[in-house]
Amino acid sequence: MKILIYPGQAEINAALNRPSAGNADIDTSVREVLARVRTEGDAALREFSEKFDGYAPASFKVDDNSLQEAEKHVPEPLRQAMLDASSNIRAFHSAQLQGTEVVNTAEGVKCWSRDVAIEKVGLYVPGGTAPLFSTVMMLAIPARLAGCRDIIICTPPGKDGKVSPLILYAASLAGVTTIYAVGGAQAIAAMAYGTETIPRVYKIFGPGNRYVTRAKDLVRLDGIATDMPAGPSEVLVIVDETANPAFVAADLLSQAEHGADSQVIMLTDSRLMIDLVKNELERQAAQLQRNSIALQSLENSSLILLDTIDECLKISNRYAPEHLILATSDPHLHAAAVVNAGSVFLGNFSSESTGDYMTGPNHTLPTGGYARSYSGLSTGSFMKKIFFQEVTERGLLNIGPATELLAGAEMLGGHRNAVTVRLKYLNDEQNR
Amino acid sequence: MKILIYPGQAEINAALNRPSAGNADIDTSVREVLARVRTEGDAALREFSEKFDGYAPASFKVDDNSLQEAEKHVPEPLRQAMLDASSNIRAFHSAQLQGTEVVNTAEGVKCWSRDVAIEKVGLYVPGGTAPLFSTVMMLAIPARLAGCRDIIICTPPGKDGKVSPLILYAASLAGVTTIYAVGGAQAIAAMAYGTETIPRVYKIFGPGNRYVTRAKDLVRLDGIATDMPAGPSEVLVIVDETANPAFVAADLLSQAEHGADSQVIMLTDSRLMIDLVKNELERQAAQLQRNSIALQSLENSSLILLDTIDECLKISNRYAPEHLILATSDPHLHAAAVVNAGSVFLGNFSSESTGDYMTGPNHTLPTGGYARSYSGLSTGSFMKKIFFQEVTERGLLNIGPATELLAGAEMLGGHRNAVTVRLKYLNDEQNR
Repeated sequence: MKILIYPGQAEINAALNRPSAGNADIDTSVREVLARVRTEGDAALREFSEKFDGYAPASFKVDDNSLQEAEKHVPEPLRQAMLDASSNIRAFHSAQLQGTEVVNTAEGVKCWSRDVAIEKVGLYVPGGTAPLFSTVMMLAIPARLAGCRDIIICTPPGKDGKVSPLILYAASLAGVTTIYAVGGAQAIAAMAYGTETIPRVYKIFGPGNRYVTRAKDLVRLDGIATDMPAGPSEVLVIVDETANPAFVAADLLSQAEHGADSQVIMLTDSRLMIDLVKNELERQAAQLQRNSIALQSLENSSLILLDTIDECLKISNRYAPEHLILATSDPHLHAAAVVNAGSVFLGNFSSESTGDYMTGPNHTLPTGGYARSYSGLSTGSFMKKIFFQEVTERGLLNIGPATELLAGAEMLGGHRNAVTVRLKYLNDEQNR
Repeated sequence: MKILIYPGQAEINAALNRPSAGNADIDTSVREVLARVRTEGDAALREFSEKFDGYAPASFKVDDNSLQEAEKHVPEPLRQAMLDASSNIRAFHSAQLQGTEVVNTAEGVKCWSRDVAIEKVGLYVPGGTAPLFSTVMMLAIPARLAGCRDIIICTPPGKDGKVSPLILYAASLAGVTTIYAVGGAQAIAAMAYGTETIPRVYKIFGPGNRYVTRAKDLVRLDGIATDMPAGPSEVLVIVDETANPAFVAADLLSQAEHGADSQVIMLTDSRLMIDLVKNELERQAAQLQRNSIALQSLENSSLILLDTIDECLKISNRYAPEHLILATSDPHLHAAAVVNAGSVFLGNFSSESTGDYMTGPNHTLPTGGYARSYSGLSTGSFMKKIFFQEVTERGLLNIGPATELLAGAEMLGGHRNAVTVRLKYLNDEQNR
């Protein structure tokens, strides 16, 4: 953990530099996986699963029985918590569904747009040390709300070849019942190109390790849409003297435990807070299960003292953090000044971890500075807009002559003619 | 032009196969342009402009004087038509701006999202035989409405080194005054990485030739957002016996004239319409300025007779056309069945060309089947959503315990602890 006291611009830039691994070392391997799954289908899928995950199930598809039994394996208080989380996520994502508004841009010219579900979507749920059922909820609930017809989930099985009942229960809670026990870049390839078992989808969602993330980037070159580019998780906390240092330290550590390449930043205008938070970090880190990961991640991280909270906000907007916590006396005022961030947490009791599970907004958010141009996932991410326009005879008399002029000036005679034949027809009608 | 009478599935698939050039032949060249502009800046930009466009201006930036003078070079009726088009485009895109709605997902838990403009955007306007000022209007008007702070346009100059006054006037109409006379993959590279003259942007918009399109695909791998992948233009027209064959033929030709690789498709349930439209196509094509392009494009194109309009709609949804015209007796009924299309035109008087200029919705639309997962451009394309949440003390008492359980089940002790320290504080407070 670096401590910067009234640093200069160059020092700030160095501290905010994100740890980046690049992709040169994995590109060849990912490209090979994509190419082979594309041409060889299930056989390659099986081979890579065995090679990388140490297990390839006889059938990739999780059977209905395991799905139906899943609920029994979820202990009661956890089951209720998952129901509560689903309900909050559903409430927030329902409000994102938009109606259709007709705009009359000229007399006789009606225009509108309709949000229509993407028919086939694929959700990737990472494996690892713990079953990330919250990822299932954050992807599957908006996909269902959007009305996607075919929703599939790919997730790597555990060493026993089984997918965790928590993942299966979360999927069935959201109404998704097609789950394939396969992970890694090979799962992305399967969803992008289709295999004998796994159907091709139009858009792929979800987080993953570097291989998965790179595979998503590369299949996009073949026209498969993806949710967003992704990198390591990160949080930036803006702190004034009214903050609680124990809360701030806990928030910093909660992101630091994600991975050794995570980055956590505190910006403050209070000299005192630097010391208090530093002490709390040391105290709390010692008690964490994932202590060694968190300590590595803190190496990339800084506590930075600046002159004013306005300056903190300016730096934060430049950094464009995935998560931003405003632990200040007037978080609403400061929230209004945020222009680049994924998800913002206002006040001392809005811990970032409540947003990962319970508040309602999606936790799939732009990392790596992508918040400058990308949004977090919303129900609209599972839909596309279709535009509609209806031009009546009266409408064409209104906008037809201008269309002819504009098409003519762009030297598109065919475009002009499509109006001319119609105006001529209307003119002939009138003279009859 | 192929004529298919009650074809089988395989014949339909063959007819709907889009002409595709692939990128293998240009990839090396595009990658070199990107790499060299990235490292050498303006010097490489100048070299490639001379090599590919035959001209490199002393200064890439179009001077203020040329911008101010532009209006004088636009003849009056055309100027008024451009004003009318701008007004319609603005009306439709203004309606896309969304307010903020607060959702209380639990007592003491307020969540909302805010659409915030992307600060820096780059608009690419292709060159070629004609000044595509309508592209300027369709990109710059929503960018301004969104509130983007820095909007730049790159467009290749003509052989005389000058940018057409129509382009400049359209830009100033929309309120954009930073224009660079540079085109091709090198312009995309400049906007993606920045040079001494041209600032780096966060998102790049606009159509272009294969080199430009491929450059946009490739800079996306470096984290620069782009509007959408792009391919040749296309239209699909669904026609019943109530359609006017002269209108249908004119609409097919208006897309066919875009390029030799464009594709136009007519689907109908009327045997008679096949013959009538075919005759009209021959008659009208002969009169077109861009006759030879249109004739080449018709080689990729088909008139297809099917059993019912429902079947036509099914095939259209599978094809996912950029433009869909419903020249049927009940276009509203049929529009409701559309799930994959970029922009839809209802009825006999809604020519696709009115949508290119005058109706109001954006004409930057997903081609190549991308309408299955991508939307046409809207004001929201120039913005990103930021999520906000405020959890009060009462709110944390409500959702905190569930967050602890869920974080614990995902083995994220730090996430759980961020809630635990707060709940403990509240408990201690209460007992004081």
